[in-house]
Amino acid sequence: MKKYIITGVSLCLLILITNARSFAQIKTMASGIKMITVGAPDKYTPYGFCEEAPMKTAIGALPQAKLPFNINDIKININNRGVIVEVPLGQDEQLYGFGLQMGSFNQRGLKIQPIVNDNPLNDRGYTHAPETFYVSNKGYGILINTARYTTFYCGNTAKLMDNARSNSTKADGNSVAELYKTSNKSSGEVTVDIPGAKGIDVFVFEGPSLMNVLQRYNLFSGGGALPALWGLGVKYRVKADFNQGQVDKMADYFRRNHIPCDVLGLEPKWQTAAYSCSYVWNKDYFPTPNRFIDSMKKKGFHINLWEHAFVSPQSPLYEPLKNKSGNYLVWNGLVPDFADAATRNIFGNYHRKTFVENGISGFKMDECDNSNLAFGSNSWSFPELSEFPSGIDGEKMHQMFGILYQEAIYNIYKKANLRTFMDVRSSGSFASSFPVALYSDTYDHDQYIKMILNTGFSGLIWSPEVRESNSITDFMRRCQTAALSAQMVFNSWYLQNPPWLQINKEKNNENQLMDNAKEIEGDVRQLLAFRMSLVPYLYNAFADYHFKGIPPFRALVVDYPEDKNTYNLSNEYMIGKSILAAPLTEKDKERSVYLPAGIWYDYNTNQKYQGGKTYTISPTLTQLPLFIKEGTILPLAKPVEYIMPNTQFELTCYVYGSKAAAANLFEDDGVTFNYKEGHYNTVTLTWNKNKGTVTRKGQFKAERYIIKKWVVIQ
Amino acid sequence: MKKYIITGVSLCLLILITNARSFAQIKTMASGIKMITVGAPDKYTPYGFCEEAPMKTAIGALPQAKLPFNINDIKININNRGVIVEVPLGQDEQLYGFGLQMGSFNQRGLKIQPIVNDNPLNDRGYTHAPETFYVSNKGYGILINTARYTTFYCGNTAKLMDNARSNSTKADGNSVAELYKTSNKSSGEVTVDIPGAKGIDVFVFEGPSLMNVLQRYNLFSGGGALPALWGLGVKYRVKADFNQGQVDKMADYFRRNHIPCDVLGLEPKWQTAAYSCSYVWNKDYFPTPNRFIDSMKKKGFHINLWEHAFVSPQSPLYEPLKNKSGNYLVWNGLVPDFADAATRNIFGNYHRKTFVENGISGFKMDECDNSNLAFGSNSWSFPELSEFPSGIDGEKMHQMFGILYQEAIYNIYKKANLRTFMDVRSSGSFASSFPVALYSDTYDHDQYIKMILNTGFSGLIWSPEVRESNSITDFMRRCQTAALSAQMVFNSWYLQNPPWLQINKEKNNENQLMDNAKEIEGDVRQLLAFRMSLVPYLYNAFADYHFKGIPPFRALVVDYPEDKNTYNLSNEYMIGKSILAAPLTEKDKERSVYLPAGIWYDYNTNQKYQGGKTYTISPTLTQLPLFIKEGTILPLAKPVEYIMPNTQFELTCYVYGSKAAAANLFEDDGVTFNYKEGHYNTVTLTWNKNKGTVTRKGQFKAERYIIKKWVVIQ
Repeated sequence: MKKYIITGVSLCLLILITNARSFAQIKTMASGIKMITVGAPDKYTPYGFCEEAPMKTAIGALPQAKLPFNINDIKININNRGVIVEVPLGQDEQLYGFGLQMGSFNQRGLKIQPIVNDNPLNDRGYTHAPETFYVSNKGYGILINTARYTTFYCGNTAKLMDNARSNSTKADGNSVAELYKTSNKSSGEVTVDIPGAKGIDVFVFEGPSLMNVLQRYNLFSGGGALPALWGLGVKYRVKADFNQGQVDKMADYFRRNHIPCDVLGLEPKWQTAAYSCSYVWNKDYFPTPNRFIDSMKKKGFHINLWEHAFVSPQSPLYEPLKNKSGNYLVWNGLVPDFADAATRNIFGNYHRKTFVENGISGFKMDECDNSNLAFGSNSWSFPELSEFPSGIDGEKMHQMFGILYQEAIYNIYKKANLRTFMDVRSSGSFASSFPVALYSDTYDHDQYIKMILNTGFSGLIWSPEVRESNSITDFMRRCQTAALSAQMVFNSWYLQNPPWLQINKEKNNENQLMDNAKEIEGDVRQLLAFRMSLVPYLYNAFADYHFKGIPPFRALVVDYPEDKNTYNLSNEYMIGKSILAAPLTEKDKERSVYLPAGIWYDYNTNQKYQGGKTYTISPTLTQLPLFIKEGTILPLAKPVEYIMPNTQFELTCYVYGSKAAAANLFEDDGVTFNYKEGHYNTVTLTWNKNKGTVTRKGQFKAERYIIKKWVVIQ
Repeated sequence: MKKYIITGVSLCLLILITNARSFAQIKTMASGIKMITVGAPDKYTPYGFCEEAPMKTAIGALPQAKLPFNINDIKININNRGVIVEVPLGQDEQLYGFGLQMGSFNQRGLKIQPIVNDNPLNDRGYTHAPETFYVSNKGYGILINTARYTTFYCGNTAKLMDNARSNSTKADGNSVAELYKTSNKSSGEVTVDIPGAKGIDVFVFEGPSLMNVLQRYNLFSGGGALPALWGLGVKYRVKADFNQGQVDKMADYFRRNHIPCDVLGLEPKWQTAAYSCSYVWNKDYFPTPNRFIDSMKKKGFHINLWEHAFVSPQSPLYEPLKNKSGNYLVWNGLVPDFADAATRNIFGNYHRKTFVENGISGFKMDECDNSNLAFGSNSWSFPELSEFPSGIDGEKMHQMFGILYQEAIYNIYKKANLRTFMDVRSSGSFASSFPVALYSDTYDHDQYIKMILNTGFSGLIWSPEVRESNSITDFMRRCQTAALSAQMVFNSWYLQNPPWLQINKEKNNENQLMDNAKEIEGDVRQLLAFRMSLVPYLYNAFADYHFKGIPPFRALVVDYPEDKNTYNLSNEYMIGKSILAAPLTEKDKERSVYLPAGIWYDYNTNQKYQGGKTYTISPTLTQLPLFIKEGTILPLAKPVEYIMPNTQFELTCYVYGSKAAAANLFEDDGVTFNYKEGHYNTVTLTWNKNKGTVTRKGQFKAERYIIKKWVVIQ
């Protein structure tokens, strides 16, 4: 007797989708992750470009999944115009996600179009990282697997069939606001419009908790990124026209003044052509680039190169890519057909040989989003109607371009067994594993804070860069936010001197330093020292991101999904397991902080606060606005100025409260992927009966952390 | 022997379109108007909804058409994504059009998306009147006959194949502006992206001149609108919550103070429900509506009713339309399927019986555009994914909704042989024949002026409403612009008193009138008197619009297409044949005026100016900024306060210069369509040997105009 074996498909159901008269196939992709397929999905989709294997064991270790509705209640309708997906929505559900949203946080009630864009306006959904993925506080996530421009109506439509004939006689007002107040009642569904599609995959990530949903998503995407350890230090991007000697002087400035810095970023002028790019060292500016890289390395600096992917006729990459590019040019340069892996390889191999093998530790991948449609005339990048040899069109290419660009570059590092931490201006779905931080040319501090939270819903990393500032207060508060983010960057690409010596751009470039420049430099040194002391804790948070899918930075609603006070709280966030950050901006002399259930300690004063309430805080410009959860062991390092492979961190463990849960540290070489083969240690810190204990488990042979002291705070 | 007769198709060619491997059929629709069809165009298109027959005789009387390129050089490509149209573009061509554009004038170099929208931002192409139609100063127009959301790249793309390998080494700057300066070189084509389409009609309107192109377009659309004569007077919209008595008092105010007014507009409260609409008189406010209408009529007032097309469950129209509506609601109201003529008839018949037959002379058709996508969350109206019984989808319905709403209402008046002049917030292509003015909730005075010019390229009428103001200067300059526009409207829907008694909204509503209210009232009376004196001239300009297709208001480039100084001149325009208007705004103490070739007279001072130069003018708040072309006979009327069917205008004819061309006046009953059967006179004014002569030709039996005086200005 023969046995029929079904492989790869754990569960496979067929349901009749009434409108479309199409069959829906439901496939279990991993534990608690299902994919519904109807019709003929596009050839090129976000999931189709995901190169990482799902971390199925870790996914399997999560609590038993469940959905708050029946998966068969998701309606998918294919018509002449495209595909419509309707997902049930409960009355008190809150929705989050859609990639790196800038103008919105809680997405319920909004019409969201996650379309790639360089300068997102308001809350329409335009973003540097268009993810067709949202999550609910009720513990599930929906990902529409399409690279088409898609619209989500998040419970703000009303269908004719839903409408019982209303008897309410509403008293209209006369103001526009009053007249419009009678707007649509919230609908019981999220409706998704995917024009042009002939079929679709809908991924359903189950909970039970919102945190579990995010874990499943990140683990399914290959696990969260684990940046090179040095990436958690400070990055400084020098002025665009600095030459080798000027960069060298800047490096000396950092070391001489004991200001922490791990990475120096070079801006456009390092190349012979930048708009479009040649990817060739400009010898007028950098006569001996490889010697320069080496000498910087010896001083503890990693070098990161700015570029974008539009290939100049002057580039050695032009001829090899000429027949592997789109039919429209950008800045007279080719648009490589990155949908074709062969094209990514050509682009990547050139970068490997020319840069990575000579010690370049990362790239800033610029201009891979698109111009803001709302701005109209000042449009750049390729048209949506572009055609590419692979068959992808310009619209889908726009949505995927940042992802594919990252793959082209990150693959070099993966193959070289070398970790990195890079920068990119566009990302997307299933990108959790990329150690690449997003940045923006926008500069609204409130939005910069909000984006830290929003990345947590979408497997992204956001870098709230510090550039110039309106005032010292503005500058210092921005530095604080940067210090409390995944990547701390000073982007001085148009500043002659570090911004802390002169916050005003014009004066800075005329070398007119502020009278109190040295004082502010000292304050900044203090903030950067804190950043460096946080690195071991942050590194562990990233290890949890990688191995467990837990976002290192996340909104409070992720940890407290049933606490209504967190639903619209977009300016406070969790860092790792136990730290709550509540950054201030220029306009705040003080701010209110909501502390969720439990006891919390003000990091600066050690004052105890009862959770479930809102407090007012007014930290100084050098005090970081942090609260530590009771029961936390917080290991803080003696700050180093930069992180070398053999750097050892001397730690003080702060124990908050009389009882504390064990805390972990992640210990590995910090620069290779050997941890994937188990070459790492889990260092466990426990506090019991007034005694701290350190245990170490794992195959890594060196000790990164030396615990020097335990301090109890009660 | 048998003869094969080809009917309806004057010329029919088949050309091979290489990319698409589809055949293009070129059909001559009228003299100098061709339609290229490729593939399978959509069922619902702008042209498909055009109900007026083209005025072929008038079109045939235009000069011999010709194109600056070979029509076969228009490339049409159908691919998986949709249709791409590429139209040749000469190096020094200037492009205009795309409906009621607000943020742009000369469209060359822009990416334009003519998508219907209630609050267009910047110059991306969003508009109250989305026309997929542009014209060139080289004497042709291109109309893409689609109701899909379409993108036009107006010569701002660069194709790979166009790009000879460039040897230019550009010196990049460091500022963002400098870096981006190397942007795409202008391309030699306009590229049109029509996603989702499977075929397309492209209309080509030939010249030879730009004016001829516009004439062909307007005549092809049924000839320009000829509003009811009273429509050229003053319209005043009363406060939204005024009741019958309050409107009556307002009417008396006008007559008692001798302030011209022909139309009173009622705002939301006249109905029992407004969001959505009941279309039922609110008897609490208007206990005897029909008696009210009659009494107003006797005083020389026409009544116009505000409404929109979203049908409340409280409306008698709800049940009849329930199965003829889209599957989504707006403000809990039905969205009637106006793509179906039967639905338009139900809607129209109700309005005919309930309102028009009782004397309502017009409607203000609000909310028929869509919410601004760029604004994000505050979205209203129906989703693009809506489905309608006729098969049209929400996207196409949005683009057509204003047009179809106008047809539903205007047809009542056409059938009743009754002319009107109405208001609408959305229009589109082939709408030249609608006597309906567009308006907007935006309020930028510079844009309001620019839109007067832009309507001339698109067969539209624009009403730069006066509402509240920042200052007396702001108010008076806005009044001037309104007086020099197609429809003069004071929209006081949120003002207790006329704005000239108090420009400030809050104070106005608290009945705190300005100290100099009576003085400003006098100034306004003076401006309105000028408006009324211009009515015969304006009426003739509209007759030229109807019979010859000449836009009554138009940019200078239309009359002077080879004068480079006119290419970007977006704040001066022609009224009729001989008047040049150059409105000022609040911020202008003075302004520069470019006068094209010829001699011009300052209307206020009679000073002579040599054309081809730019001058500075500084008219007072009661002086209208006008210039009269040498050789003009300008007939100005003794102002009346309102226009009745038997109103006679007493005219003074101003002769500018020693020699003058003959001028015409259009004479008919002013209120019926009988002119279409020839019941009108052409009154010709000639000036010869220092003597004025009046001749009258035609079948109309009465005399509307009495020429009282001739005045020579030299």
